[in-house]
Amino acid sequence: MPCQNLPSRPIWHDERDGKVRIIDQRKLPHNLIISELNNVDDVISAISEMKVRGAPLIGVTGAYGVYLACLDTGNRADIEAVAGQAGRIKSARPTAVNLAWAVDRTFEKAAAARPELRAQVAMQEAAAIAELEAENSRRIGIYGLSLIEAIAEEKPGKPVNVLTHCNAGWLACIEKGTATAPVYAAHEQGLSVHVWVDETRPLNQGCRLTAWELGAAGVPHTVITDNAGGHLMQKGLVDIVIVGTDRTTYTGDVANKIGTYLKALAARDNNIPFYVALPSSTFDWHIRDGVMEIPIEERDPDEVCYMPGFEKTGENLLMPKNSAAANYAFDVTPARLVTGFITERGICRAKEDDIRELFSEAPSGGASGEKS
Amino acid sequence: MPCQNLPSRPIWHDERDGKVRIIDQRKLPHNLIISELNNVDDVISAISEMKVRGAPLIGVTGAYGVYLACLDTGNRADIEAVAGQAGRIKSARPTAVNLAWAVDRTFEKAAAARPELRAQVAMQEAAAIAELEAENSRRIGIYGLSLIEAIAEEKPGKPVNVLTHCNAGWLACIEKGTATAPVYAAHEQGLSVHVWVDETRPLNQGCRLTAWELGAAGVPHTVITDNAGGHLMQKGLVDIVIVGTDRTTYTGDVANKIGTYLKALAARDNNIPFYVALPSSTFDWHIRDGVMEIPIEERDPDEVCYMPGFEKTGENLLMPKNSAAANYAFDVTPARLVTGFITERGICRAKEDDIRELFSEAPSGGASGEKS
Repeated sequence: MPCQNLPSRPIWHDERDGKVRIIDQRKLPHNLIISELNNVDDVISAISEMKVRGAPLIGVTGAYGVYLACLDTGNRADIEAVAGQAGRIKSARPTAVNLAWAVDRTFEKAAAARPELRAQVAMQEAAAIAELEAENSRRIGIYGLSLIEAIAEEKPGKPVNVLTHCNAGWLACIEKGTATAPVYAAHEQGLSVHVWVDETRPLNQGCRLTAWELGAAGVPHTVITDNAGGHLMQKGLVDIVIVGTDRTTYTGDVANKIGTYLKALAARDNNIPFYVALPSSTFDWHIRDGVMEIPIEERDPDEVCYMPGFEKTGENLLMPKNSAAANYAFDVTPARLVTGFITERGICRAKEDDIRELFSEAPSGGASGEKS
Repeated sequence: MPCQNLPSRPIWHDERDGKVRIIDQRKLPHNLIISELNNVDDVISAISEMKVRGAPLIGVTGAYGVYLACLDTGNRADIEAVAGQAGRIKSARPTAVNLAWAVDRTFEKAAAARPELRAQVAMQEAAAIAELEAENSRRIGIYGLSLIEAIAEEKPGKPVNVLTHCNAGWLACIEKGTATAPVYAAHEQGLSVHVWVDETRPLNQGCRLTAWELGAAGVPHTVITDNAGGHLMQKGLVDIVIVGTDRTTYTGDVANKIGTYLKALAARDNNIPFYVALPSSTFDWHIRDGVMEIPIEERDPDEVCYMPGFEKTGENLLMPKNSAAANYAFDVTPARLVTGFITERGICRAKEDDIRELFSEAPSGGASGEKS
């Protein structure tokens, strides 16, 4: 996303000095901090501590992690050492399926290469995945634009109100984002679009990251608490909900940031279209029942207890110090609540047959459980 | 609620010096600040700035405001001056109906008294309303206990998991609370009960006030973000939802803290009972369609932009400084999503006929609009 004085991507391989660099997203919007990823441990901590986050970006970061693993082990090491490191990277966060997908893909390319070329091959593959995700986002933007255009035609002279949860923008991806890609495309076309930005507790990716992105791009937006979306929908102030996803089953169940399910329920109750924007790398072709089977990460309760982006001190402890807190990071929205998917190959309903029609080359699904 | 070294109520008339005092709830849980209400302006700012909040407590505070208005004007003034002040108090916050109810009731008593007795009569009426609400809460606790007991019988040896939103505890009422009254009653009976406490952005009444109350009373509880309840319900971790309300129509539509509607949708989607605990002072016998007609307060967006309970500084600005924010304080849960009401006269379904069966003396309803 071309913003003045900003990196254009949240991760990049700097050809001048060979370093992999990221935006450390924890301190946005107030501080723009660029960090180097110099080894696998840096990659794992960047993912697990959420310096980088968002399913496509986690995937690309993991791919660069394989490159760094190859560099670390050099020509001497057995590919088994790289495999071990790849396994560690894949375990950094459990929910986003893109991580395993990108790490496996990069590792396979490296493993097939001559030892002295492994690092270079892995680096090229990581860069190729980054380009692929950037291209996916561009296509998602084009397909999603058609939905916004259709709404705009029905309310001439008035802005199209999009509600989004968390950050599925370029910071979560590589360029343009997934959920935000149609918004940016509409804005670039001169359509009047306004975004309701869910704050997204506990880590506030909405008010910290999505609001920052949209502001930098000049897109009108209003931050709301995570509690507010249902009221806005009741009052006719939301035309469409578009969110991203960390893992979507081939049956159409959508894992995304905790709270997404509540917005899907409200959208359904108010007959508002609820779309999920995703590249095909986010489909999990092996899981049938998302509610039962997608692993939901539980993170440090302190993320709930303290305000995000600030030092943990008594000064910003939000609750009694003896109260317990729980921190489930994702929830699963059942396919029945999803109007459709916006993918790099077009828009489809949240049904297995429709998904497979777009992605006919995908592996056949697991039969691991009854669909809830 | 008897806690060591704490006031037992959130508002009281101190007979030793004749002062009306409140707990300033804005600084809890870290600081317990007691403030005096010396005149009508103090009352209005205490209500509008949310030093006191919660429908029953706002009502009692407004009643004491009429007493202070009578004191201010003294014997000299015309009752019209008191009427004017009563009108100002009623306008301090728009959504909770208890405020107008308690102010009108107190004013009528004062207006009927001889001028030199007005202040005393108003003070006695305010105290009587406080006692009434305390008694209402006790009764709500007894009736609500039966619901928790029934669940406990179905899962022997396991805690009953209650989810609540915002604070409808003794801090919002006078004693015991509305939504929390059944929880305290169960805890006092030795039943194992655990409360999921919604943080309740933007002002965090859940994690600041409800968690503090429950902790002081020794009730096991876990703070969660407002986003988490749907996931917990999907996973079978919630047995019952109990919330308070700021205004409930005679048809059963429930205005409560923003975000309540989302929890009601999730409860319905997961077949979990969703109860609203309220004294009859919170029924609005004049409004038919809550979604269309209950006025929803919009508060200062800065409550969303900055961390609650702390000074507003660049240090705790949560979002880009140029991003807009909106702050709707309440939403309306349609009666169709409410399993039942827990009132001081018993439990009933969220249907006009059932409500009127319990409160047969209530005025007949308005026909102001089609029910949505």
